[in-house]
Amino acid sequence: MEKKINKVVMAYSGGLDTSVAIKWLQDKYDVEVVCFSADVGQNEDLAPLEEKALNTGASNIYIEDLQEEFLKEYVFKGLKAGALYEAKYPLATAYSRPLIAKKMIDVAKKEGADAVAHGCTGKGNDQVRFDVSFQALAPGIEIVAPLREWEFKARSQEIEYAAKHNIPVGATKESPYSIDRNLWGISIECGILEDPWAEPPAEVYQITTAPEDAPDKAEYIEVEFKAGEPVAINGTEYGAVELVSKLNEIGAKHGVGRIDMVENRLVGIKSREIYEAPAATILMTAHRHLEDLVLDRETYHYKELIAEKYAELVYYGQWFSPLKTALDAFVDTTQQYVNGTIKVKLYKGSATVVGRKSNNSLYQENLATYEKSDVFNHDAAVGFIELFGLPLKVHGTVNKK
Amino acid sequence: MEKKINKVVMAYSGGLDTSVAIKWLQDKYDVEVVCFSADVGQNEDLAPLEEKALNTGASNIYIEDLQEEFLKEYVFKGLKAGALYEAKYPLATAYSRPLIAKKMIDVAKKEGADAVAHGCTGKGNDQVRFDVSFQALAPGIEIVAPLREWEFKARSQEIEYAAKHNIPVGATKESPYSIDRNLWGISIECGILEDPWAEPPAEVYQITTAPEDAPDKAEYIEVEFKAGEPVAINGTEYGAVELVSKLNEIGAKHGVGRIDMVENRLVGIKSREIYEAPAATILMTAHRHLEDLVLDRETYHYKELIAEKYAELVYYGQWFSPLKTALDAFVDTTQQYVNGTIKVKLYKGSATVVGRKSNNSLYQENLATYEKSDVFNHDAAVGFIELFGLPLKVHGTVNKK
Amino acid sequence: MEKKINKVVMAYSGGLDTSVAIKWLQDKYDVEVVCFSADVGQNEDLAPLEEKALNTGASNIYIEDLQEEFLKEYVFKGLKAGALYEAKYPLATAYSRPLIAKKMIDVAKKEGADAVAHGCTGKGNDQVRFDVSFQALAPGIEIVAPLREWEFKARSQEIEYAAKHNIPVGATKESPYSIDRNLWGISIECGILEDPWAEPPAEVYQITTAPEDAPDKAEYIEVEFKAGEPVAINGTEYGAVELVSKLNEIGAKHGVGRIDMVENRLVGIKSREIYEAPAATILMTAHRHLEDLVLDRETYHYKELIAEKYAELVYYGQWFSPLKTALDAFVDTTQQYVNGTIKVKLYKGSATVVGRKSNNSLYQENLATYEKSDVFNHDAAVGFIELFGLPLKVHGTVNKK
Amino acid sequence: MEKKINKVVMAYSGGLDTSVAIKWLQDKYDVEVVCFSADVGQNEDLAPLEEKALNTGASNIYIEDLQEEFLKEYVFKGLKAGALYEAKYPLATAYSRPLIAKKMIDVAKKEGADAVAHGCTGKGNDQVRFDVSFQALAPGIEIVAPLREWEFKARSQEIEYAAKHNIPVGATKESPYSIDRNLWGISIECGILEDPWAEPPAEVYQITTAPEDAPDKAEYIEVEFKAGEPVAINGTEYGAVELVSKLNEIGAKHGVGRIDMVENRLVGIKSREIYEAPAATILMTAHRHLEDLVLDRETYHYKELIAEKYAELVYYGQWFSPLKTALDAFVDTTQQYVNGTIKVKLYKGSATVVGRKSNNSLYQENLATYEKSDVFNHDAAVGFIELFGLPLKVHGTVNKK
Repeated sequence: MEKKINKVVMAYSGGLDTSVAIKWLQDKYDVEVVCFSADVGQNEDLAPLEEKALNTGASNIYIEDLQEEFLKEYVFKGLKAGALYEAKYPLATAYSRPLIAKKMIDVAKKEGADAVAHGCTGKGNDQVRFDVSFQALAPGIEIVAPLREWEFKARSQEIEYAAKHNIPVGATKESPYSIDRNLWGISIECGILEDPWAEPPAEVYQITTAPEDAPDKAEYIEVEFKAGEPVAINGTEYGAVELVSKLNEIGAKHGVGRIDMVENRLVGIKSREIYEAPAATILMTAHRHLEDLVLDRETYHYKELIAEKYAELVYYGQWFSPLKTALDAFVDTTQQYVNGTIKVKLYKGSATVVGRKSNNSLYQENLATYEKSDVFNHDAAVGFIELFGLPLKVHGTVNKK
Repeated sequence: MEKKINKVVMAYSGGLDTSVAIKWLQDKYDVEVVCFSADVGQNEDLAPLEEKALNTGASNIYIEDLQEEFLKEYVFKGLKAGALYEAKYPLATAYSRPLIAKKMIDVAKKEGADAVAHGCTGKGNDQVRFDVSFQALAPGIEIVAPLREWEFKARSQEIEYAAKHNIPVGATKESPYSIDRNLWGISIECGILEDPWAEPPAEVYQITTAPEDAPDKAEYIEVEFKAGEPVAINGTEYGAVELVSKLNEIGAKHGVGRIDMVENRLVGIKSREIYEAPAATILMTAHRHLEDLVLDRETYHYKELIAEKYAELVYYGQWFSPLKTALDAFVDTTQQYVNGTIKVKLYKGSATVVGRKSNNSLYQENLATYEKSDVFNHDAAVGFIELFGLPLKVHGTVNKK
Repeated sequence: MEKKINKVVMAYSGGLDTSVAIKWLQDKYDVEVVCFSADVGQNEDLAPLEEKALNTGASNIYIEDLQEEFLKEYVFKGLKAGALYEAKYPLATAYSRPLIAKKMIDVAKKEGADAVAHGCTGKGNDQVRFDVSFQALAPGIEIVAPLREWEFKARSQEIEYAAKHNIPVGATKESPYSIDRNLWGISIECGILEDPWAEPPAEVYQITTAPEDAPDKAEYIEVEFKAGEPVAINGTEYGAVELVSKLNEIGAKHGVGRIDMVENRLVGIKSREIYEAPAATILMTAHRHLEDLVLDRETYHYKELIAEKYAELVYYGQWFSPLKTALDAFVDTTQQYVNGTIKVKLYKGSATVVGRKSNNSLYQENLATYEKSDVFNHDAAVGFIELFGLPLKVHGTVNKK
Repeated sequence: MEKKINKVVMAYSGGLDTSVAIKWLQDKYDVEVVCFSADVGQNEDLAPLEEKALNTGASNIYIEDLQEEFLKEYVFKGLKAGALYEAKYPLATAYSRPLIAKKMIDVAKKEGADAVAHGCTGKGNDQVRFDVSFQALAPGIEIVAPLREWEFKARSQEIEYAAKHNIPVGATKESPYSIDRNLWGISIECGILEDPWAEPPAEVYQITTAPEDAPDKAEYIEVEFKAGEPVAINGTEYGAVELVSKLNEIGAKHGVGRIDMVENRLVGIKSREIYEAPAATILMTAHRHLEDLVLDRETYHYKELIAEKYAELVYYGQWFSPLKTALDAFVDTTQQYVNGTIKVKLYKGSATVVGRKSNNSLYQENLATYEKSDVFNHDAAVGFIELFGLPLKVHGTVNKK
């Protein structure tokens, strides 16, 4: 593919791949490179990236703190939807890609760039999430993915290229693991993890204490939700970033949020992934138990189907799709009732809900009780069952002959 | 409802309710009462029931050990389907009702009975499960539910009635909790549990050790599945009853399988339920992780929808329905691939999968790896993404103007 | 059930059943009866009902023209959702019940009534639609359904009761058919129609010409939609009532909109129903073909599932449920694109779409064409198919051995 | 892509494209070409293809009559599933591709070929259906698609190439339309049809009479089904091929089965398609109305979701997938009840069901009737509605404050 481009906005992390990519893009496409770096809670100081990018040849760099927007406009939408890909993965990386893509398009417009670039390889999900977001938001823009295109077969070749072109590369020793981190979770892959029978070694975990090393005494926390979003811990209100950071810290201390799974990528292969997501685990669990209390049965059951589709769409990179918008609208109407407090017990790897309360609670003790205060009409059950079971009775009569 | 009946087969546990019901049925309907008791793993000696039932006025009693059939023909079907009601409840009681109903109908036919009876109240799910099963299997049969019909408002009135009619009633002190137990799990409700904000007191748990009191050292077990059913633990094959019993024991020791939830009953109310299900928790988790490995993505994702419907049907008492049969057929074809071994770590309340292997594994290291052995075609991704994203690109072009 | 009530608002049609019911309610409950009559396009003059109701003993009567609200707030929501119960029934009666129930509750509040009543029998769907709407909107209100409660076994008994109590009853000869009519359609049942093998006789049809008697020349009409709602015919804008009336007239002339089906009622039985719905048939068909053009594939396919659930909810009387609200929110976001014009050919019983155009059209001739103007990238297909088919390739490799 | 191949089995129609492709494959890949032609009811004499293929350079040709297998093992499975893509397209071409692919793989094994080829372009669905079927059935085989690869930009270039290489090409004038035909239907595209606003001109239709030219007198036929498959017309049993051919003939005479739609292709574009499918239209309609009668409500409603997924899978070329197998298993269990006779009226473009009967009918006149023979328990409705509506009542109580 011969692309004629003049100016490209590239997602830039300051690591080997994207540092080399700046130069490679200039070489290959004779193009001006503008870098874009976002803070989505990866726990790195981004300030030094400015000098580094410019030294490597970038004409400009944008560094944006997107943590609040990331949580409020992406993560919490999925939290409200109940989205867990393949019933386990809380989608941390999957939420960050469309957000970064959107900001890159904004920069591209401002800079008059005619192309965007990212450092994803050709076999992961992230390339799809970036590219589809770009296509949806700026249908005419060119997309370049150096790692999908270039000639380097090994890290050593990249390092050689960097040396040759005086690209400043950090002295960090290569980890055997590939890691992506943001406020909603950390994903870890490669190395020994590529053997799905092998238990993850202790070293892979970045933030969570091993359950065996967690405190011997359980810790109870109360999380309060308003309209489906978490707003307070133990009665103290926090902004989204602070609240999630706090839960990551508390959860990690108790070994909560480790996920070990084999998952189906969009590009047709299975991969083995380890995730650490303390806050996500606590909040997803708490949110669901609150919905147990405040959603009526039909809404609750149907929302389980919506949740599965939602997770699929997000994982597949279709954040900026009309269907995602429609699912959000569905979810939003249900969340007006999701107000209340959930009591969670954290203990050696587990986050267990042990209490829930809400002014919107549909649990009615006088209907549920077996005590004398019971107001449930037991007689109604006879008629209910008669008609509820009638189709099977007729079916039995007709077909069991 | 004036029912004219001559002979009734009644589900009989030997407790106060069904003991009183024998006499009450005779009084009210002038009917011969045949008792039916089933061993589904409730861990009680049923032999004494014979004398007790006859002494209370029953003309006959059938006591059947249904444990094997319960697991093989009911529980394991749901395990293969992945059925968890409202994403949490493994349906233990819900599986036992249709089985008992079926056996009662068999007895009714043999005895020439024209009615069946059970000891369920008018506000629970079990009455529906019994009645709908009866309607489906024997459409013409009369159904009597003494506890829905009779005049007693309190336990004390029943006891008085029992004394008056010389009904032998055990001296057991009344528990504040209502408990149902079988091999697949225990359900606990009433008492303080009717307050959903109250943490369940230690006393409610029947078999599981509190996580805090569980061993300080994790235990690893390997569970082997064939065609979706568990067949061996740590390399030793067991029959279904022994295998599940063993996992209940091991799991309970480690505090695994406690479930605390507010759920939506079929009869229109919410209730707060505590479950203990060590074997179910271990097996459901292990089974799902094995499916991660051996099912292709489209089957896996669609089966999640099937699982939700399956759980709903079972919970709603529609075991003997054409739709349940159809869902079973769907599930069965998928389980031919579900062969392999899952390594589970049990530790202080958690059952965590840490390894999986299978001859049917669709995980292909040479496709997944980021090492040099990679055979995945990275170039294909470009075309894939172009067409995968094309509808959103067109949508963006047309509508974002 | 002994209900203590003082004042009841009753849905009143002026026919035998509800006329008798006024007196019967007074007799049985010693209650003041307020009547409520709504014009939903049943093509009857409601003005005479005032005198009739008061003469029969009602203390007051409200007569309201709800046609506009019926279409805009009920019917068109279902049209946008694509709701067809069991893929055939456009739900005419099902939309009118919750609207009437809502207005009755409004009147009950104004009048200080503590009960509502309707003239539905105990085996239809309408009783559920009324009662569930009442329960949802005014949870404390008493519901009385004279036809479910009273002692009359035959129409002759009602007539006798009417004569005895000087209730004015029209001289209309009893039709063998039970008919309900509104702007969105007519339902016809009973008589010979209870034999599902019998072809409906010509006499059952109320408004549609038999296809054989329809004009020999086809008529073409162009229907324009804005945000999913019909706004114009052949370039002329109309209000909702006029537009639907016009389409009923044109469609009926061409024999369009006859529906003959056996359907599953909520109360557990099957019934055979005949519907006439010319406007509904034309608009549902046209709307769907417009969505073919303007919705992207994923939205379109998922909306088919939403449509099925929507129809089920409406048919089941759950209009005022959180789930219906959530589905509406889903649908609404999709309808912003549903603008355009559909050309329909009406001919001897058929309404066939033969052309469609829209400014939101996602059909792109330069992508679809096989002419030289083609801009579709054929090379992309190779990569697309490779990854799209990869899971099946791996599955084949692993399992076909 | 440099493919090293020795022998290729190519789907061969004898038309310009595949004739040129024989020579082109030899030129480009230095490969032996074996042709494969199948009779799936395209109404062409395939015998002359043998000489033609050999004269054009093929080393061998297989000509197989697959009509019976096509209907019994492909089409009727979809008929039983109720599969209509985007609610309209009966999938004729989509069923034929996997069958032909399967037979080609059989030939490839017999011939020791290491590649397969087809004459599909890079923007249609058929390439996907072929390629994915090949990948699933013979994961290692090479796939060549000359029309996706070669250099010809226009038909004239192909003709020039043919002349230069002495490839015998028929003198048939090029039609502006692209047509595919088999027993289950005909698809027509291109030319003026690429304008979705243009009504299809009379000339595009291959077999159906225009409704205006159809007989003035309706024709009634009775179609009998056993286990969901059609077996007889008007009381006379026919084999599958004869039965479908007969219905195509009768239906076409009455103008039945014309379909005009804009559809979403798998490759990401919309296209406008015309189909003629008289037998499919009659049988799909009749089958559904029979299911109205014999399936219980829950099975019926859930099967609508299955049908949509089934159509999607077939359209997407995933015939040989585990999910398709699982859906078939679901469907099959439901079809044991689908026995009976449907009366269809054919008249000027319409196929209308006017009667249905079955020994498995769940329609019970004594439950449905409003006559005195009614056995439905009206009292049961009160209890039914009370519990059915209870969740909404509680919701109203709690949230409407």
